[in-house]
Amino acid sequence: MAGIFLYILLLLVSTAKGNVLDEVNAKTDEYKEKIHVVDSLDLLIYLLLLTVAIITTWVFKKHRLKFIHESGVSVILGLVVGAILRFTGSTNSITVLDVAPKPSFSAGNGSYIFSPPDILRMNISGQVFIYSMSGPQADVEASQEITEIQEKATFDAEIFFYMILPPIIFNAGYSMRKKHFFSNIGSILTFALLGTVISTFAVAGLMWMVVQLISTKMRFLDTLYFGAIISATDPVTTLAIFTDLHVDPTLTGLVLGESLLNDAVAIVLCGAVEDYSRFFIQGDPDSFEVVAFFQTILNFFTIFFGSVGLGSLLGAITALITKFTHVRDYTILETSMFFLLSYSSYLFAEVCSMSGIVSVLFCGITQAHYTFHNLSAESKLRTRQLFELLNFLMENFIFSYIGVSMFTFSRHKFEFIFILGAVLAIGVARALNIYPLSLLLNLGRSKPIPCKYQHMMWFSGLRGALAFALAIKNTVSEARQIILTTTSLIAIVTVIFCGGLTPPLLGLLKIPIGVVDPGSDETQIEAGREEEEGEGHERRTQGQGELVGGEGGCSDSSIESQSFSQEVPKSSLARHWKSLDKTLLKPLLTNSQPTLQETMAWLGPVARWLTTTDQMAGTYITRGNLPGGNESYREQTDVSNPQYQTSNPTHPPILPP
Amino acid sequence: MAGIFLYILLLLVSTAKGNVLDEVNAKTDEYKEKIHVVDSLDLLIYLLLLTVAIITTWVFKKHRLKFIHESGVSVILGLVVGAILRFTGSTNSITVLDVAPKPSFSAGNGSYIFSPPDILRMNISGQVFIYSMSGPQADVEASQEITEIQEKATFDAEIFFYMILPPIIFNAGYSMRKKHFFSNIGSILTFALLGTVISTFAVAGLMWMVVQLISTKMRFLDTLYFGAIISATDPVTTLAIFTDLHVDPTLTGLVLGESLLNDAVAIVLCGAVEDYSRFFIQGDPDSFEVVAFFQTILNFFTIFFGSVGLGSLLGAITALITKFTHVRDYTILETSMFFLLSYSSYLFAEVCSMSGIVSVLFCGITQAHYTFHNLSAESKLRTRQLFELLNFLMENFIFSYIGVSMFTFSRHKFEFIFILGAVLAIGVARALNIYPLSLLLNLGRSKPIPCKYQHMMWFSGLRGALAFALAIKNTVSEARQIILTTTSLIAIVTVIFCGGLTPPLLGLLKIPIGVVDPGSDETQIEAGREEEEGEGHERRTQGQGELVGGEGGCSDSSIESQSFSQEVPKSSLARHWKSLDKTLLKPLLTNSQPTLQETMAWLGPVARWLTTTDQMAGTYITRGNLPGGNESYREQTDVSNPQYQTSNPTHPPILPP
Repeated sequence: MAGIFLYILLLLVSTAKGNVLDEVNAKTDEYKEKIHVVDSLDLLIYLLLLTVAIITTWVFKKHRLKFIHESGVSVILGLVVGAILRFTGSTNSITVLDVAPKPSFSAGNGSYIFSPPDILRMNISGQVFIYSMSGPQADVEASQEITEIQEKATFDAEIFFYMILPPIIFNAGYSMRKKHFFSNIGSILTFALLGTVISTFAVAGLMWMVVQLISTKMRFLDTLYFGAIISATDPVTTLAIFTDLHVDPTLTGLVLGESLLNDAVAIVLCGAVEDYSRFFIQGDPDSFEVVAFFQTILNFFTIFFGSVGLGSLLGAITALITKFTHVRDYTILETSMFFLLSYSSYLFAEVCSMSGIVSVLFCGITQAHYTFHNLSAESKLRTRQLFELLNFLMENFIFSYIGVSMFTFSRHKFEFIFILGAVLAIGVARALNIYPLSLLLNLGRSKPIPCKYQHMMWFSGLRGALAFALAIKNTVSEARQIILTTTSLIAIVTVIFCGGLTPPLLGLLKIPIGVVDPGSDETQIEAGREEEEGEGHERRTQGQGELVGGEGGCSDSSIESQSFSQEVPKSSLARHWKSLDKTLLKPLLTNSQPTLQETMAWLGPVARWLTTTDQMAGTYITRGNLPGGNESYREQTDVSNPQYQTSNPTHPPILPP
Repeated sequence: MAGIFLYILLLLVSTAKGNVLDEVNAKTDEYKEKIHVVDSLDLLIYLLLLTVAIITTWVFKKHRLKFIHESGVSVILGLVVGAILRFTGSTNSITVLDVAPKPSFSAGNGSYIFSPPDILRMNISGQVFIYSMSGPQADVEASQEITEIQEKATFDAEIFFYMILPPIIFNAGYSMRKKHFFSNIGSILTFALLGTVISTFAVAGLMWMVVQLISTKMRFLDTLYFGAIISATDPVTTLAIFTDLHVDPTLTGLVLGESLLNDAVAIVLCGAVEDYSRFFIQGDPDSFEVVAFFQTILNFFTIFFGSVGLGSLLGAITALITKFTHVRDYTILETSMFFLLSYSSYLFAEVCSMSGIVSVLFCGITQAHYTFHNLSAESKLRTRQLFELLNFLMENFIFSYIGVSMFTFSRHKFEFIFILGAVLAIGVARALNIYPLSLLLNLGRSKPIPCKYQHMMWFSGLRGALAFALAIKNTVSEARQIILTTTSLIAIVTVIFCGGLTPPLLGLLKIPIGVVDPGSDETQIEAGREEEEGEGHERRTQGQGELVGGEGGCSDSSIESQSFSQEVPKSSLARHWKSLDKTLLKPLLTNSQPTLQETMAWLGPVARWLTTTDQMAGTYITRGNLPGGNESYREQTDVSNPQYQTSNPTHPPILPP
């Protein structure tokens, strides 16, 4: 040992004499470490904040305090932490150097004057350092001291769009109660498509009047942008409460469906406004660009339906892979593949300059409707649980982030009149969306939407994650900063107050709660999940207790609420969809009954080729006695019957003889 | 409708006349979109690569092709994709602008000359753009064209340390077969602590001779750094194979324990080398800094044991929270909290300038050993599955990334002699680690390590994720670039070849496989997991089939292999640990039997206060007839007994009367 030690000493001495480790090398290590520590501290703050939020939520749940939901807890804690960071932040500020663009132009041409370069290189005593563009600076006072932790506590907006939103939106699609979504598809599409457009323009118009009263220069396009942002209602809090209380599934279906799809519409509308302003700049600024206007409308539809198609396509691909391979024999591979393909639906759409959020939403719906039935029992559980957890963490993160950033984000601009106007405008705009469209829909619906449900739908227009993410995406101009501040405040206020007031309002409106819907397979899955969560017992009894007093005191269409929720009315759109689903999509994409050979016998060998052994095997046992889904059968065969797993290890589609 | 339309038209015209949306605003949107699309494409490439890797892995598994493991598949696919990206990359290059530091110095003092500022601001036609430092440029030819996708396909090294490594390392700790780890703790610590240091200095010494032959200037500190990096062996591939084949658990325990802890040691050693070079620079460069040397050694121990303590502390906190609250009634809250606290062990250590990886590893071990037993049955499954999935995805990502970056990373530097030397050096260094230490250990071990096991341990020194992550952290100087390239190549070669040759070598060395160890509770959990994965059946039979031919032909210590694996020898260190664990830690941190009141009765009321009702309740039912863990009892009570859940909703520790 002593020998080795001496040898090391000798080597160290020899190396020390000859050459010193580059200073730059060491400086770089040091610099990276400094950044690393600040980043870590920052993430740690959020993690601990979330941990405290979880424990607080548990305490509230334990004591059955219903006046505040976990998203409310996260927002409030976020505000507290943000305030602490703001007022105690260390003064260890970042070093800033102003550089001039002209003196050292490397590329000879003058084309850089308008478009900033992506990368700056600076030679400091022989070592070249790379600086990458992080965006334009806000118009705030340049002298303002920004501490590192504060500045860092505000993440890049890209993180929202890559990491936070996709799991939330996917989970919304994946865990949706399909039955009441598809039976109300006509109404939901009306509210989401037409309603969101109405709301956007109503807010834009009202805010256009409001901005005449303030000093900041704001264009109609800005208020239109704000209208689109703020028209994205958030499903999180309301739906969590609805699900907890087992509110009438038709109402839940309407609110969920609307809030999901209107997120999708709002995000595409925002893109359309950006698009329009771009066309606009290229043309003559002094005229209304009719071409640009119609181009924008065309774009809107292309992007919306393109994204829907792309998401559904990736869902269908996953369904086909899980149908025609036995990758389900290795759960971890199956689950990973499911996860990767679902996420890639988001990225595919973004790469094609479509809307990733819309795509991932419809991918989620497709995965739930088809792929889910091909998965092994184990993967069904795993994927549900995985996305449930991701959703929970991301959601609470975004709410606490909204809270923190109220204090730490340096580009907030409070404009009291604008905020006040906005609060009124969204109320009016939502009324203009819900009531007239309900009136219109009730003409066609076999079971009209009662007016108390309309009140509840009006009230459940909370704003949350998506609106905030859209608002924080670009905060260059003052107008955008005002929009961000207003959106944050509206999200905070609606989540805390409207969220908290939902349970009492449900009681006040006498909307039936504790409704258990035994017919749907969704309920079975839900019930299963609740038992897993160990709170099924509690919920069930609580629901039963409050089942009394379900009768409505509403004027126009006071039908019997119970029967309303039991029998689901079918619109013609819903019927057409159902038929397509039954004869083509389900037999093609899943291993369920009946097979394509039965529903589309005229396809002959093609139908046979597209039917798997498993699907055939299912036919003989379950035909007739288990109409529809026959979910329960498949779960049994998949797991408990060993013969099923080993008898047919190679699993090609059956070829025609 | 027509009215609304007209109104919109009017508004658009009015706004168009007045003011055009800022060009900068639109430019920013456009710029962000461009970046966004490139980022998305890049991520998408990796996702699809992983998806293909998964399907390929499945095909291999289906056809029982054992010559290549999934990490091998990922590496190879990564190489292919990297080559494609490299040779087809679009020429759409990034715009780069060189700026001079001096002309526009904003801060008056000259202190910026050596340390680059964190942020550059550039005023381009009135709009200020922010550029943040991304690091020093490599010494490669400045004229080299880098395409966006290529450059982007190389992630920030920080991502490895924040997102990729922590789940892998945590999972290694969390899913460890504790029994054979703790019984061999003495040997494992010897190999990991002493062995890694030996290996580091042996590699450094040999490479120091090699670098005399090459033209690049390299210091002994650089080769020492390389020695530390390359001494981190990777548990992934070997252990996956060992687990698949049910290799003798003692050997598995030794290999796993060593590779885990030596990762920890290597990472701290790297930090120590960096530290030393920093002390060095500050002092007189012409002398060997004895103070710095001993300071570094002190630091090494402080950081290592500090991190171990911090990780274990956070594990213990989680255990206490799960013991003393009923947060387990809400699985999603429980799982989230577990996840957040585990991850914060990483961040806490980094914030304290300790080693996050070491901390998260020991946090994982603590969570598995204590917290796990307090979780609800549902959460036990969920947390295992979650980390299993994360681990699988991250691992395969890192291997495919090693492949891709071989072609796309711009700072590779191939130095043939160095690479050749390194391959020989790591073989020699590992031999100097394993054989002498085994000889030493066999003097003290009641059951010596047979020499065929030693051969296998020597051979299972694959290099993987951690070595690569350490190497890519800093690639400023040429020396570091050579180190990166060499490390990448060694990882690729060892993973593909050594990984592929492990099963035949196991047969050649006649090491017992298919060993089922019925005594340990780990085996029960493992068996449970395998059944979940739907491949338990397959594995079991395969293991049984190959159980024959377990006799060793080794010379020095050919003890009966079967009995060697069945009876686990206890070193005095293991016995001391076991006793502390049994009397203090288990009763304090978990709800298991016996309670603190029994093991440490002299604590009186304190012991009582630290015992929960659940723990007490367990006493009356299970004492005597279920010695040890009584895991099965708790799982039953937690889930299926509704009385258990509702009878005691408030759950404070019992206070003294």
